[in-house]
Amino acid sequence: MPYPGVIGYNGAGFASEDDVSDARAIAGMIDALGGMKTGFHDKDFLLTWLHSDVEVRALVQTARILEELYKAGISTRVFESGLAVSNFRDKSTRTRFSFASATDLLGLCPSDLDEGKTQISHGETVRETANMISFLTEVIGIRDDLFIHEGHRYMTEVAGALDDGYRQGVLPQRPCVVNLQCDRDHPTQSMADLMHVAELYGGLENLRGRRVAMTWAYSPAYGKPLSVPQGIITLFTRFGMDVTLAHPEGYDLLPETLDVARRHAAASGGSFSHTHSMADAFRDADIVYPKSWASFRIMERRVELLKKKDMKGIDDLEKECLAENATHKDWECNEPMMARTRGGKAHYMHCLPAEISGLNFPEGEVAMSVFDRYRIETYREAGHKPYVIAAAILNCRFEDPAAVLRKVLDRRVPRRGV
Amino acid sequence: MPYPGVIGYNGAGFASEDDVSDARAIAGMIDALGGMKTGFHDKDFLLTWLHSDVEVRALVQTARILEELYKAGISTRVFESGLAVSNFRDKSTRTRFSFASATDLLGLCPSDLDEGKTQISHGETVRETANMISFLTEVIGIRDDLFIHEGHRYMTEVAGALDDGYRQGVLPQRPCVVNLQCDRDHPTQSMADLMHVAELYGGLENLRGRRVAMTWAYSPAYGKPLSVPQGIITLFTRFGMDVTLAHPEGYDLLPETLDVARRHAAASGGSFSHTHSMADAFRDADIVYPKSWASFRIMERRVELLKKKDMKGIDDLEKECLAENATHKDWECNEPMMARTRGGKAHYMHCLPAEISGLNFPEGEVAMSVFDRYRIETYREAGHKPYVIAAAILNCRFEDPAAVLRKVLDRRVPRRGV
Amino acid sequence: MPYPGVIGYNGAGFASEDDVSDARAIAGMIDALGGMKTGFHDKDFLLTWLHSDVEVRALVQTARILEELYKAGISTRVFESGLAVSNFRDKSTRTRFSFASATDLLGLCPSDLDEGKTQISHGETVRETANMISFLTEVIGIRDDLFIHEGHRYMTEVAGALDDGYRQGVLPQRPCVVNLQCDRDHPTQSMADLMHVAELYGGLENLRGRRVAMTWAYSPAYGKPLSVPQGIITLFTRFGMDVTLAHPEGYDLLPETLDVARRHAAASGGSFSHTHSMADAFRDADIVYPKSWASFRIMERRVELLKKKDMKGIDDLEKECLAENATHKDWECNEPMMARTRGGKAHYMHCLPAEISGLNFPEGEVAMSVFDRYRIETYREAGHKPYVIAAAILNCRFEDPAAVLRKVLDRRVPRRGV
Repeated sequence: MPYPGVIGYNGAGFASEDDVSDARAIAGMIDALGGMKTGFHDKDFLLTWLHSDVEVRALVQTARILEELYKAGISTRVFESGLAVSNFRDKSTRTRFSFASATDLLGLCPSDLDEGKTQISHGETVRETANMISFLTEVIGIRDDLFIHEGHRYMTEVAGALDDGYRQGVLPQRPCVVNLQCDRDHPTQSMADLMHVAELYGGLENLRGRRVAMTWAYSPAYGKPLSVPQGIITLFTRFGMDVTLAHPEGYDLLPETLDVARRHAAASGGSFSHTHSMADAFRDADIVYPKSWASFRIMERRVELLKKKDMKGIDDLEKECLAENATHKDWECNEPMMARTRGGKAHYMHCLPAEISGLNFPEGEVAMSVFDRYRIETYREAGHKPYVIAAAILNCRFEDPAAVLRKVLDRRVPRRGV
Repeated sequence: MPYPGVIGYNGAGFASEDDVSDARAIAGMIDALGGMKTGFHDKDFLLTWLHSDVEVRALVQTARILEELYKAGISTRVFESGLAVSNFRDKSTRTRFSFASATDLLGLCPSDLDEGKTQISHGETVRETANMISFLTEVIGIRDDLFIHEGHRYMTEVAGALDDGYRQGVLPQRPCVVNLQCDRDHPTQSMADLMHVAELYGGLENLRGRRVAMTWAYSPAYGKPLSVPQGIITLFTRFGMDVTLAHPEGYDLLPETLDVARRHAAASGGSFSHTHSMADAFRDADIVYPKSWASFRIMERRVELLKKKDMKGIDDLEKECLAENATHKDWECNEPMMARTRGGKAHYMHCLPAEISGLNFPEGEVAMSVFDRYRIETYREAGHKPYVIAAAILNCRFEDPAAVLRKVLDRRVPRRGV
Repeated sequence: MPYPGVIGYNGAGFASEDDVSDARAIAGMIDALGGMKTGFHDKDFLLTWLHSDVEVRALVQTARILEELYKAGISTRVFESGLAVSNFRDKSTRTRFSFASATDLLGLCPSDLDEGKTQISHGETVRETANMISFLTEVIGIRDDLFIHEGHRYMTEVAGALDDGYRQGVLPQRPCVVNLQCDRDHPTQSMADLMHVAELYGGLENLRGRRVAMTWAYSPAYGKPLSVPQGIITLFTRFGMDVTLAHPEGYDLLPETLDVARRHAAASGGSFSHTHSMADAFRDADIVYPKSWASFRIMERRVELLKKKDMKGIDDLEKECLAENATHKDWECNEPMMARTRGGKAHYMHCLPAEISGLNFPEGEVAMSVFDRYRIETYREAGHKPYVIAAAILNCRFEDPAAVLRKVLDRRVPRRGV
């Protein structure tokens, strides 16, 4: 019973006494989770490909259980106190609120490390700060996606500092680090995307053989991270899907992630292919994910210029990029393009915000008529993210998340009401 | 027993076991609330005149119950988790902390949407953002008072987006929207003001026939919102009071709000009159509320200039306004003016911060000697606001707030202590 | 049994049933606290020397109990709601997170008063704002350390406003004010430092006769507060320690604090001496605390210039200071200097962040090899601060903190898990 319908929510803040079957359904999901052997405990959630298949499945299962408990109005507060520190080194709306929602849902107190307000600007080292903010902290969520080769490195540096602090008795617990987007992966996004497609098709086991087009799309903006396409090709290939990556020449991803995608496809019985034609990728696709990004070679040059503080060089690079982008305005997800997909009815996905031609930009990633048709689907896609984050915390911070969730279900504390 | 004295608070964090009479008093107040039929549930709190008389009374009653429970040291935590998002598009101290206090009092987690930090600046649509911040959100409080014709429109746009998201299954619950000041109304302020006068006179039923002077007053500042005077004339006329609006020529309010005031006065048996003389308004007044504002015609011109990005025009308009303001320095609430009120002892009200002649400004809204005499009263007036906000949330988010409060009283969880 | 080992933490979120001896150890600590008669209740925590010896000991004892309860996985949530307002008028990382951690640990909701966002910039008075942010507030933490003679004055002004508001019925409770660093003292830091040395030597009663060198050290930075050295010399002299203050000529502290140090030393049987030689201070020291600061005479000139808005004068003063600083680069805590201490093995202390020669600065307060050896000790030192803040709140806000903690121990609510 992979994706049961939404469990009845009686509006009074908790499931009615005779919702026995709902409770049984959730209990079954928890039992299934309990059967999965993972090595998450006291680890971090940084890149999905650092985790085994069963860990990825356990994360999805945990997130689904949290969703069902939420809809059933059952409190999933499992911490009485503890900070949930977020460190956004780039702008964010949806991930910021997803992190706050997720951590509050578990009983933690979201607390933003606004580096402008702190002494990090005084030359304080990462190692020291990581410990100083962690004395009573259970999770640190980090977004660091502006510089290629930097974001993941920074997160592992924080993680290493926490390991050291915990081992040496500085920290009474080891907070987990959750990647809220780096230069390599955007795992809470890709996992939410995975839950979305699983819901569309009735379960992870029904994804085998689905054709996915992860494609570049035109945008008048510059320098978007590579983490979303890298996250999709590495994750979706695990489930037997036929994933095609498409982009104009020069918009390459990090080679490492293509290697991971190939390896995953081989292991799962799916496939991974690579093309420079959007039209080819869309042909007979079940799912399309058209999205703008910069090439990693451009990002590398940008980092070098930044290190040299060559602002003139950066301006020139930006102009060069935008001019190059502008030669690919035909990479738009429009009606003729959608008509090439399976039955003309592929599912359109996007991490949002999308750049919609004629709405927020004259020309963008997607035609307005296409986006409008799938708008609500993209909102639902985004709606999984808070649960993915909460699920990552539960798995990283508890040795036996299933046991914790079983108690949550048994105590039946209403999330709202008295 | 409309306004019983403060219920004994034993300092240990909860009412003593033999505070049976206090508990009975609160229980009686809850029963009275239970008898009021309202249509608040799953609605918003945007403009007081969108609500029936009984809804306004229910809101006051709920706020009073929350105050008594607070003073009795009884926890009113009715949410185990959930975000309370605030979006301040203009500066705020007291409302910001009132919102944080109120939402924390109910168990929600205050979370500020600082638009500078988010991707709204990337051209994201209101509709999308409203959903993205609301997956696990119970209330969104908005201040948007800088532009005439814009604030209320924005709030209804957010509300519409939430309706849509809830109906389409994007949101598992429909958060309520609470107006923390718009171009038309400042309902949490005017309701706190109403509670204040009810307390001064021993209950809402004792307000009939009281003379209220809602008057403009001189300020060296420019462009203050109209929402407070509009809120007062529309709300106080509901309770049989004789409300006089006074301002120099040219400082008109939105005509719609004058219509509402006239209609409410006719229905309640009170009166609403309009004059260009502060002295006339103060004659025999029981209550005076002298406060600066801009005229809506100036605000309209300002919005037009802003839309055209005509910064020179805005500077010129500001100079014109300040020059015009300066011709009305005699609109000061000073001792001679107060001497005209009933027995020279009218109650002075203000939403704070006041502009006090000789204190924070050479010449301002109120003479220092007058303000000093009523300073503590204005602080008490402000003290109702957190409870008004919490009461709005309770009424919007629960079908039967009286039932919830009854359980809160019965369980007697101490707010502090163990 | 002053400093029992860390109490066993079984990782499941709470102490196991047979941790009877641990529970007994904590119960014993609580009984000892119960025997201490303090006058903390409804007071503030501003300067340690405003408190009696027994109050200082009670604070340490409370902090230690909170640490043990934390390590034992027992929730110390004693508030169901209530704001914990922080007002940082200077940058902060560790104190900001310590305050958030501490208040969340007790169940309060941290809420930052960012003065840039509020109407304080509109000329609102301190008295009014103090009340407006306090209607449902239990604690206000303030950092105001930039201006000599100003920080402590501001805090007492806030405290006076709260007294007045509480007495006049504006506030249903009197929040306590906790000094998070002012011009005179940094009491949460010095108390954490005291706990650190007590831990190093096995209890407060083992501090008698220890030689402490509180010394100035070279820094390329300008205008660091005096509060840390002032806090150390006034507090450590209470416990029979032999405290030497050392700094180059011209880097004097506030004379008042030297008087306090002398008085405390006389009363405790310790000593307080004052020298202009780092080498002398280090000789046979058990503990060294080398740290940069500005002289209070410079700070006074700076405040005068600021009041006159003489920015040219301030620039000149800064240059003058840095030039003067640069003549004292030999005030570095390096290996030869450490070799002078008792057995060459004094404990090195720092409030962090330290300025480490060759790491974050070419020349700084401490040689890299020295800092590296004590790095983990300085982290542990910092780790006491959240508990000190929480202990101050418990003592200020509860008449009988021992009774509250006894109930906390008895109910044994797990801090994490279900």
